[in-house]
Amino acid sequence: MRAVCVIGLGLIGGSVLRAASAAGRDVWGATASDEDAEAARAAGYRVESTEDALDRAAAEDALVVVATPVTAVRDVLRLVAWHAPEAWLTDVVSVKDPVAAEVRGLLPEVRYAGGHPMAGATESGWEASSAELFTGAPWAVTLDEETGLAAWREAAALALDCGAHVVPASSGAHDDAVARISHLPHVLAAVLAAAAGTGGPLALSLAAGSFRDGTRVSASDPELVRSMTEANRGALIDAVDDALGRLGAARGSLSSTGGLKSTVDAGHVARIEWEELRSAPREPLSVRWSAPDAAERLREIGERGGRVVSLSEDSAEADVPIV
Amino acid sequence: MRAVCVIGLGLIGGSVLRAASAAGRDVWGATASDEDAEAARAAGYRVESTEDALDRAAAEDALVVVATPVTAVRDVLRLVAWHAPEAWLTDVVSVKDPVAAEVRGLLPEVRYAGGHPMAGATESGWEASSAELFTGAPWAVTLDEETGLAAWREAAALALDCGAHVVPASSGAHDDAVARISHLPHVLAAVLAAAAGTGGPLALSLAAGSFRDGTRVSASDPELVRSMTEANRGALIDAVDDALGRLGAARGSLSSTGGLKSTVDAGHVARIEWEELRSAPREPLSVRWSAPDAAERLREIGERGGRVVSLSEDSAEADVPIV
Repeated sequence: MRAVCVIGLGLIGGSVLRAASAAGRDVWGATASDEDAEAARAAGYRVESTEDALDRAAAEDALVVVATPVTAVRDVLRLVAWHAPEAWLTDVVSVKDPVAAEVRGLLPEVRYAGGHPMAGATESGWEASSAELFTGAPWAVTLDEETGLAAWREAAALALDCGAHVVPASSGAHDDAVARISHLPHVLAAVLAAAAGTGGPLALSLAAGSFRDGTRVSASDPELVRSMTEANRGALIDAVDDALGRLGAARGSLSSTGGLKSTVDAGHVARIEWEELRSAPREPLSVRWSAPDAAERLREIGERGGRVVSLSEDSAEADVPIV
Repeated sequence: MRAVCVIGLGLIGGSVLRAASAAGRDVWGATASDEDAEAARAAGYRVESTEDALDRAAAEDALVVVATPVTAVRDVLRLVAWHAPEAWLTDVVSVKDPVAAEVRGLLPEVRYAGGHPMAGATESGWEASSAELFTGAPWAVTLDEETGLAAWREAAALALDCGAHVVPASSGAHDDAVARISHLPHVLAAVLAAAAGTGGPLALSLAAGSFRDGTRVSASDPELVRSMTEANRGALIDAVDDALGRLGAARGSLSSTGGLKSTVDAGHVARIEWEELRSAPREPLSVRWSAPDAAERLREIGERGGRVVSLSEDSAEADVPIV
């Protein structure tokens, strides 16, 4: 099993380190946070300087995982370019096109496929990390025109070792999707919390389930939410415009006919669609690495709501929902 | 203990019937749903025609609880006017000003205080009901200029017997508050689910915690969501306008500077304010029924985020957060 070097040991990076270790891999890490470094060492993990960690990765042909906040990615990639320019490389940053562009510019020789585990927690930092964080979660692994299948397999194998299943997607399709299912929810939660807050203590004291769940993600560290959402600016603007149009239509309908039927029905249909997709029967699908259109077939699996669940020497084993 | 007659035996009405019975009250009910009636009878409860149930309420000086969907309230009140025009009356409908106006018009002699338990579930109907649904939940009991303290005490006593605590508020203040903390969350959840749904199976298959929680209430019966939100049209339009303004500002900021700081920070501050309000130390406060400004003092307690936790012959015992 390939060794894993994790740069950044917060909630996500720390959980990758723990899960990869639990899967039997040799692991080590680095972090700019003295607090996280100390806690990870106290938990028995090897934590080095970023330079030493990358030197070791180059020497052992390890998979380097960039797990820093998005704002620190460029600095880390510069160090990778210096210490391990031909490394196996992936990342767990929530936006993929901007990271892929940085990698292309700084690391032309690297063997890279981007990653994004769809798991999180309100708490952050090493102390919140867990080897089980990714169990059963989707983990996007990007497959662009320039992505080598070998690099993609390395990133996908790590995700599977962490207990996740792999959703193949191009970086652009990933960013459009997460703008709608992850970043827009954060923006709307903030809008909702602030609008409810102007109702004062009476409103807040009456707030129950719909407010609690609708604003849950607003409890997260605002700096992390900002860096995540702002990094996906282009796709997020489209998603916000869509939401503005729908909310404006609801407003218009409410003030003209007084009705919310189309708003409420459209939301219900989409939510039920999501629930049905999760519980739909699935058919297995195998993609041979040697197939000339392997990358395209993997992306198609992602577009259909499918996932890769295991890898072998010859092929990727997937399943797709029957709808 | 005063007997309780519940009209409407769905999730909320059924739970009131169960909880009031568990508290030792004599209870009976009526429902337009044959399915709910049969299930309630099978669970051992007395279910009659609405006319018979109200006749009995008049004969036994019971507290009548209107627990139908908001769209059926007027028809039920007409029957109350015919069969029990001087009853003790409350309701558990999610909007209060429109119900109070109907009561004033149809039942000038009734002893009424409106109620709204802030508890729910995605499922509806008797089968989803539970005697524990209201445990620890806020339950607004309205106190308008025309509300008699005796009627208010009856409605509040029922809420406390159901395991809730009582938040006193005028009908208008209640409707403004729930527009922001209950009805706006439903509208934004619908907008979010629909906007995410346009991302297709790839987006839905990547959807995780923020989407799941942000759209949870969209799984509810769309007819119930519509009747609840549409009934609070005036206050909801104000809340939607507030949200539109905030979302538009986020959009503008995202496309000009690329930043979401003020959006994210405002949401975080409001969410933390809510969490702090819930865990704040509280000081006790007693309001004597005989005080000339008792009603005003009770409403003030609600405005400060306080709650009434018990009733005695002489006074209402409350606590308010120390902030």
